[in-house]
Amino acid sequence: MAGDPPVPERIEFVEVGPRDGLQNEKVLISTESKLALVARAIAAGARRIEVTSFVNPRRVPQMADAEAVCAGLPERPDVTYIGLVMNARGAERALATGRVDQLGAVCVSTDAFAMANQGQTSAESAAAAMEIVAMAQAAGRSGQITIGAAFGCPFSGEVAEAGVIALAQQLAAARPAEIALADTIGCGNPAQVARLVAGVRAAAPGVPVRVHFHNTRGTGLANVWAAVQAGASVVDASIGGLGGCPFAPGAAGNVASEDVVYMLERAGVATGIDLAEIIAASQWLSGIMGRTLPGMAAQAPLFPQTIEGA
Amino acid sequence: MAGDPPVPERIEFVEVGPRDGLQNEKVLISTESKLALVARAIAAGARRIEVTSFVNPRRVPQMADAEAVCAGLPERPDVTYIGLVMNARGAERALATGRVDQLGAVCVSTDAFAMANQGQTSAESAAAAMEIVAMAQAAGRSGQITIGAAFGCPFSGEVAEAGVIALAQQLAAARPAEIALADTIGCGNPAQVARLVAGVRAAAPGVPVRVHFHNTRGTGLANVWAAVQAGASVVDASIGGLGGCPFAPGAAGNVASEDVVYMLERAGVATGIDLAEIIAASQWLSGIMGRTLPGMAAQAPLFPQTIEGA
Repeated sequence: MAGDPPVPERIEFVEVGPRDGLQNEKVLISTESKLALVARAIAAGARRIEVTSFVNPRRVPQMADAEAVCAGLPERPDVTYIGLVMNARGAERALATGRVDQLGAVCVSTDAFAMANQGQTSAESAAAAMEIVAMAQAAGRSGQITIGAAFGCPFSGEVAEAGVIALAQQLAAARPAEIALADTIGCGNPAQVARLVAGVRAAAPGVPVRVHFHNTRGTGLANVWAAVQAGASVVDASIGGLGGCPFAPGAAGNVASEDVVYMLERAGVATGIDLAEIIAASQWLSGIMGRTLPGMAAQAPLFPQTIEGA
Repeated sequence: MAGDPPVPERIEFVEVGPRDGLQNEKVLISTESKLALVARAIAAGARRIEVTSFVNPRRVPQMADAEAVCAGLPERPDVTYIGLVMNARGAERALATGRVDQLGAVCVSTDAFAMANQGQTSAESAAAAMEIVAMAQAAGRSGQITIGAAFGCPFSGEVAEAGVIALAQQLAAARPAEIALADTIGCGNPAQVARLVAGVRAAAPGVPVRVHFHNTRGTGLANVWAAVQAGASVVDASIGGLGGCPFAPGAAGNVASEDVVYMLERAGVATGIDLAEIIAASQWLSGIMGRTLPGMAAQAPLFPQTIEGA
């Protein structure tokens, strides 16, 4: 089905719009709209959704309603709700809601970015992430870890691949549900992606690799493609391509869910997401945000539907 | 240098901004600005440039100054200037300038789009393209052929890959300098790209394969990457990501030169283009056009240059 080199028949799709998509937006979005976004993601087929983050509301005001969002989530045993947490305090908050199925922890590959993002060294951020996974497991939930700035750092530039792979190997000892490689500032390239995904898979055998790309330089979907070719089995994306990190200067949005779904489904890789529904969700979100969003498939005709109707 | 699967050490880069980039722009750009764009492309390292098209000025007013553009081109024996032509009349005009090194002919994979684009059937467009190559060769120039709508058609939807490959095999008899696969409406996906590039290479052995992608649904760079992996040796791009076809509803711009160069150079594939110079050209063109252009690398920090200067 998928050309040469081979790609898998399916990947697992994670919608991160309610958290990573919105967190950098200056205008506060209502809890009701966030819950509507979650509902639209579910209606389109998403079964893993990053719904909020439990962080300091003074640093990320958009996420101040984390508990309210969780209280309003639909009861869906088939959906995994993910809450992002940066420390034990956040993990306690997330677990206290009783509605977060999985904790998402973050460690950062470089000291400079770890300090800007979370006031820690890289090693401290790794230790904190492993503690969060342990807390999730102790509470009967699962935990996973994202390695931020895995492809490059806005403060220290190039990031050594061997260091990221060694970090993944260290994290694997916590038995996370998966390890993600995040291109926080969208500087990665597909050859690097292929090497890093393969390297992490080899260093942490049996741990699924998730990828998280931002489209700062237009390379987001190329990086998704390279990652899937290299064996990444889970892909993050954000409806409309919203996103950007408040602590990463120059960062643009996540890869857009509708663009990722268009590319992968057309390439024979099942995502579980209905393209027309996710496009409709993007168009709805564009109305909520009051502007055209970066995602492109929602602005184009729905191929292969033809102009005169086939 | 390039991960797994392997990619080539270098590709040949073709700047198509002066023709495909500008042709869909409603505001007429001065001949002087077009020549400045050519000069900036050369300064950035471009050695093949599609400078204009010799088409009916009533249908494409932006290209009415084709002869004036050619008369103003710098004398650069190391640069191949390409003129796009659709028929024998256009080929005569291009050759009469004495400044066009290579004729670019276009045939279209579907009757419906061939009719909308050039008032011919697909077969007639192939015959015309082969005649144009013969005219170029008879005049001591070279000719190449682009297969338009090779990945999908706005009027008839899916395009059979076997048909495109058979068309390429037929075209190879004209001994074109290369055969290009064009995703005119930006609907292609990387698995399809890999299959078609490999199929054309097998059907037309010894004929270099060029690729021409539009970024309508965000997949442009993924398609470039898949094409290069599959052995395409020449890549079209447009400074700033300008472009779109006046006869292809819903078509967006070409892949942006600066984004293609960023991705390939960072992935270890040499393009001959200086990233900082092509970004500067895009920023200059943005000023000429009076708006932000679609290309993204020109709007992002120049990685790996860092915020505090490394």
